Amino acid sequence: MTLPRVLICGDLVWAHEESKQLFHGLADVVRMDSLDRADFFANLNQGGKYEGTVAIYRNNTSAEHVGVFDRALIEALPPGVRWIGHNGAGYDQIDVDACKKKGIIVSNTPVAVDDATATTALYLMISAFRHFSQGERSLRGGRWKSDISSSLTHDLTGKTLAILGLGGIGFRLAELARAFPMRIVYHSRKKVEGAPDWCEYFGQERLDEFLGLADVLSVHAPLRPDTEGLVSEEMIRKLKKGAILVNTARGKVIDEAALIRALEVGHLGAVGLDVYPNEPSVNPRLLDFPNATLLPHMGTETRDSQKKMEVRALTNIRDFLIKGKGIDIVPELRDLATKL
Amino acid sequence: MTLPRVLICGDLVWAHEESKQLFHGLADVVRMDSLDRADFFANLNQGGKYEGTVAIYRNNTSAEHVGVFDRALIEALPPGVRWIGHNGAGYDQIDVDACKKKGIIVSNTPVAVDDATATTALYLMISAFRHFSQGERSLRGGRWKSDISSSLTHDLTGKTLAILGLGGIGFRLAELARAFPMRIVYHSRKKVEGAPDWCEYFGQERLDEFLGLADVLSVHAPLRPDTEGLVSEEMIRKLKKGAILVNTARGKVIDEAALIRALEVGHLGAVGLDVYPNEPSVNPRLLDFPNATLLPHMGTETRDSQKKMEVRALTNIRDFLIKGKGIDIVPELRDLATKL
Repeated sequence: MTLPRVLICGDLVWAHEESKQLFHGLADVVRMDSLDRADFFANLNQGGKYEGTVAIYRNNTSAEHVGVFDRALIEALPPGVRWIGHNGAGYDQIDVDACKKKGIIVSNTPVAVDDATATTALYLMISAFRHFSQGERSLRGGRWKSDISSSLTHDLTGKTLAILGLGGIGFRLAELARAFPMRIVYHSRKKVEGAPDWCEYFGQERLDEFLGLADVLSVHAPLRPDTEGLVSEEMIRKLKKGAILVNTARGKVIDEAALIRALEVGHLGAVGLDVYPNEPSVNPRLLDFPNATLLPHMGTETRDSQKKMEVRALTNIRDFLIKGKGIDIVPELRDLATKL
Repeated sequence: MTLPRVLICGDLVWAHEESKQLFHGLADVVRMDSLDRADFFANLNQGGKYEGTVAIYRNNTSAEHVGVFDRALIEALPPGVRWIGHNGAGYDQIDVDACKKKGIIVSNTPVAVDDATATTALYLMISAFRHFSQGERSLRGGRWKSDISSSLTHDLTGKTLAILGLGGIGFRLAELARAFPMRIVYHSRKKVEGAPDWCEYFGQERLDEFLGLADVLSVHAPLRPDTEGLVSEEMIRKLKKGAILVNTARGKVIDEAALIRALEVGHLGAVGLDVYPNEPSVNPRLLDFPNATLLPHMGTETRDSQKKMEVRALTNIRDFLIKGKGIDIVPELRDLATKL
């Protein structure tokens, strides 16, 4: 009997042993080694080495050879492919609308990244409040602390952290920041059920009040067509002068030109960024601001998180093979999944 | 009636208004503006502009002109000086032994710096675990994240934080790290009364076990003759391979040569330092290690903390003027103070 195939697209580094165990007797695990998209398509078809693929494990590193999972790629997948188990919380490299039309379910890896990404936001927040990144550049430039002025820096304790999007990462950051304590306010489309009272909800009608309260605004909204540029010039202007902006979500959720203007005029006191609109390219203008802490998208870059994410992405595929459905179905496809 | 004088030695920036209110009707506040030690001594004597000084507010910035408060300086103070209200948690720039012989009480400003310094230690710890400082250098060098390897980085959650010295700063760090959670162990000469159960005590007889448990060792011991080089080659060797060392206390508490050797051979996985043995000079060898996060002694450098410290240092002097005794008497002089 021929087992169905699970195709590994992109890096699978830490959970190699686990992948063997998870699919033992359930599926053949095949590595995608195409160097371009044409070869990828050719091998998915009859007689190709990926023939019989029912589920694809996907890591963003696969984009290097076959490109992102855009409409053209999704439409060209053979009808046998039913599940894409994406390794990552953000799945903006997958056209979920095209998947929906084709009846392909997409799962991601929430929870697994919460801790590492929230820790990154905490680090950026501390650096922005305290000017630590600038301080280290001052020391390494042989100027000890002459570049910095303590008159411009503040403690986090007692300040207000405004969280835009209280998902897993936003809530984890809330927990870490509460230890200071900071006051925690959040805005999202709906009040988050089960969120504790100390996370104060501000709905759409109180968005201005929410922005006005923020000593730091931390962005935790996924990138979707409707969230591109969500943190707009208008929204940034409603922050108080000297407020801090932190982004560990996706670069395009913030209007970068507006962020730069706000730094230029001193409206934003500091920024902490892990993500950029056109990674790995970084707008060189950002490097000019002493009060910018800039990380190269390291939010989930820990050995512990990477393994957790790999295992979680694979487990979603295993659950699909056994039960017909993995647990981490992306919101846009949950309706579709209920019809399975 | 002539009021006694309070002499302000060094920076008093944020609590200027408070200083007027605190000493209104109690003392004349005089600024020390001597440019050298000889002028300082001359003006403390009869007919000098500092004559009648009973208490000195002291900031380390005064060392620029009159030097540290060493034995020679203390011995030359007129007998009328009874109190030195030092602004800072660490008071290693004051010869407390000479003060004791002369019957001068020294107070410092604990608590006021706990929050800012513990936040610094937390930042250094996150950077060391996650290689963030290195990541930013990689980005700013135009190399995106090519300098870093996620295979070497870890989440903090579930790791063990070993605190050397559970005073105010160490305990504050414990509270912040517990939010992840991390396991918290500490070593000090005596078990800290009132410390919660989740801070596990390791006494002298279990020091080796304590060191062997540490994923990160954070130093919070004051610099005294008996703590110089406390974190020795031997102690560093007892840490497990890849452990992280964080220091926000004083540079000389660690044997710097041993620390550098341990980085060279890869025994230490990373270090996070805010303090150095010969500030503002930094051993250039430290700059060579990619896994070193180096801040220019910014632990208490926030506007909020600076003001809290100034007010606290002044309040100790006010309490001395009114009640004969301030609350923050340094441990070495508590016996002396009880005889007042």
